[in-house]
Amino acid sequence: MEWISGSVTAPRGFRAAGVRCGVKSQGKDLALIVSDVQAVVAGMFTTNRAAAPCVRYSRHVIEAGIARAIVANSGNANAATGEEGFVDNVRMAQKVAQLLECPPAQVVTASTGIIGRRLPVEKIEAGIEQAMLQLSPDGGSAAAEAIMTTDTAPKAEALRLNLPGGEVRIGGIAKGAGMIAPNMATMLCFLTTDAQIAAPALQQVLKDAVERSFHCLTIDSDTSTNDMVVILANGQSGVDVHPYLDDFQMALESLCVRLAQRIARDGEGATKLVEIEVRGAPTFTQARQMAKTVAESPLVKTALFGNDPNWGRILAAMGRSGVDFDPDRAHIALQDTLVYADGKPTAFDAQDLHERLKAEKVTIAIDLQQGTEHATVWTCDFSYDYVRINAEYST
Amino acid sequence: MEWISGSVTAPRGFRAAGVRCGVKSQGKDLALIVSDVQAVVAGMFTTNRAAAPCVRYSRHVIEAGIARAIVANSGNANAATGEEGFVDNVRMAQKVAQLLECPPAQVVTASTGIIGRRLPVEKIEAGIEQAMLQLSPDGGSAAAEAIMTTDTAPKAEALRLNLPGGEVRIGGIAKGAGMIAPNMATMLCFLTTDAQIAAPALQQVLKDAVERSFHCLTIDSDTSTNDMVVILANGQSGVDVHPYLDDFQMALESLCVRLAQRIARDGEGATKLVEIEVRGAPTFTQARQMAKTVAESPLVKTALFGNDPNWGRILAAMGRSGVDFDPDRAHIALQDTLVYADGKPTAFDAQDLHERLKAEKVTIAIDLQQGTEHATVWTCDFSYDYVRINAEYST
Repeated sequence: MEWISGSVTAPRGFRAAGVRCGVKSQGKDLALIVSDVQAVVAGMFTTNRAAAPCVRYSRHVIEAGIARAIVANSGNANAATGEEGFVDNVRMAQKVAQLLECPPAQVVTASTGIIGRRLPVEKIEAGIEQAMLQLSPDGGSAAAEAIMTTDTAPKAEALRLNLPGGEVRIGGIAKGAGMIAPNMATMLCFLTTDAQIAAPALQQVLKDAVERSFHCLTIDSDTSTNDMVVILANGQSGVDVHPYLDDFQMALESLCVRLAQRIARDGEGATKLVEIEVRGAPTFTQARQMAKTVAESPLVKTALFGNDPNWGRILAAMGRSGVDFDPDRAHIALQDTLVYADGKPTAFDAQDLHERLKAEKVTIAIDLQQGTEHATVWTCDFSYDYVRINAEYST
Repeated sequence: MEWISGSVTAPRGFRAAGVRCGVKSQGKDLALIVSDVQAVVAGMFTTNRAAAPCVRYSRHVIEAGIARAIVANSGNANAATGEEGFVDNVRMAQKVAQLLECPPAQVVTASTGIIGRRLPVEKIEAGIEQAMLQLSPDGGSAAAEAIMTTDTAPKAEALRLNLPGGEVRIGGIAKGAGMIAPNMATMLCFLTTDAQIAAPALQQVLKDAVERSFHCLTIDSDTSTNDMVVILANGQSGVDVHPYLDDFQMALESLCVRLAQRIARDGEGATKLVEIEVRGAPTFTQARQMAKTVAESPLVKTALFGNDPNWGRILAAMGRSGVDFDPDRAHIALQDTLVYADGKPTAFDAQDLHERLKAEKVTIAIDLQQGTEHATVWTCDFSYDYVRINAEYST
């Protein structure tokens, strides 16, 4: 496996474009990703009960298992918009289908931005026409830009995997929670591969990869109405990956982990990437649950912003995580320095640790010493800018 | 039922004191509440797995069902302090027991403050001697002061209840999450009554009252290692309340609700009290779960700090609450203004609502229209000061 430059257009047989159609006040706001041939599609969607029309629509596309394109707009989530919202969303899919001469049921739609406003669908239709003219095998980075809301940087990754049957590539773009305009909490990730793979296998591989990447990511615990991760596999490498599904899954997971880390590092107001590992747990699920509780604790996150080696808050978060453990056996290390062991504080140099917590990446390592499973979760710290960004008046 | 001035010493046969013994850098830091006679005791404790020695010790007191006194220090939580911490905690109880000539098993202990530091137990023993000399039927307010960490005001309430058998009084003091020094996340509430009541009935009445008061309170979702609510009932009114348990429970609940509201209003960095009601739910538990998810959403809380009528965030939090509901039937009102109904936004005056959100108390009313149960939850907004207070370097 080797990292390469590029994104969703790194795999063979994909073209993409990102254009400005005027939904956002500035910048590109419409992304289009097209496979030259029908692709197998898999996806995972928000569990939010108030899921947006694009989520409900795209779920049906994934159920059928075949897609030609993904179209996404930023600046407006088209959520909580009533029946009109469903009609607007279908119009997005129809416009792409008409130009590609495929059924609308083969077009994945996605929207991200403010909740509760009608989508300016005429602008989006015009944008789709424009994007279709600009489709290019180099268009992945423009698409990555066009799905940003207030991320401070586009997020793209690509890799190639050498299998006995030949080379397979995987590419992806994502957007996160660098939210300056309020409500733009959506996590979107679009993945492509030229592997030959059947829909059920693709769905399973995606699910496993997401389980240890995006499902291990939390910025502020606010799951959005529009989250989705979608992968298109168009088989253009000519390599059947079914005999090597483990290798393929590991490669996909590595790519998703990198994108998840990019999202965490670019969280709203973030000054650092925080990696929390829980080891020695009876199950992966329990390890992740505890790591996530620590990652979502406002008290832990504000302490990290202050570079404060305040492990008491970490222990308190572990204690309320719902995971059964023995506090007297657990160990906690911050930046590789053991701060809590055998039920009490260790003697560590607090001033030195305070300095080392100013790094761009901070690790919290927890060892429960009661099992062999582990999980890693990524988040960011909690700064004044988080409050500033989210307290600004939206209407 | 009538509200009266006073606190834990309003019921007959209770004396209290609050003194400074030097655990905190300034102010009173040791509270003592004593019943003249043996009292029936009930209590509820943190569910945090890393519960402090005082919690584990006081659980045993409650199991036995009889107590003479409550002793509490602020400034140090005596949590994550190893076996030494247990010994220090027992010494607190022993000192009180020795001076009152009662078994140590009849003394409830409580500590609140920073986690992971040894308790200065000699100072506390000296403080107990001093407090014992100052015990007085007017000492409730001093005790309320002595349990404060960085609450901006003491929290006390008292009431009298006229029953056919005579007058019963209930009093209480509480401390909350006005945290300037880090780690001081403990919620403590001490209640007294002169009612005649048996331990099992008292425990049940307390549980019911807490269920709709303190369990409906959330500042930042960080359940502490030291939380407790304890009630002493010494029977000195001569009134047996068993025939009127519903009345007694309602009175106790009213008092607990007032104390919970005081804690929310004084949350860290709070600029307003936020009351969230979910109506039309199938069960109380589901209603409370949804209200709490909204109350704990950082995006909702920062919007309220910005006086932003950003109902999309409320709907998104409802959607991820784990409660099954139909977003197309739900209604959301902010400050009595309907903002979302029948699956889409209403036409409301956003500027006017923005102005009215600047009030000291903000109400969010959610109607799911799919049941008859309701729950009310109290919290505060999320301001720059929350970050400032909690990002300061502790060590």
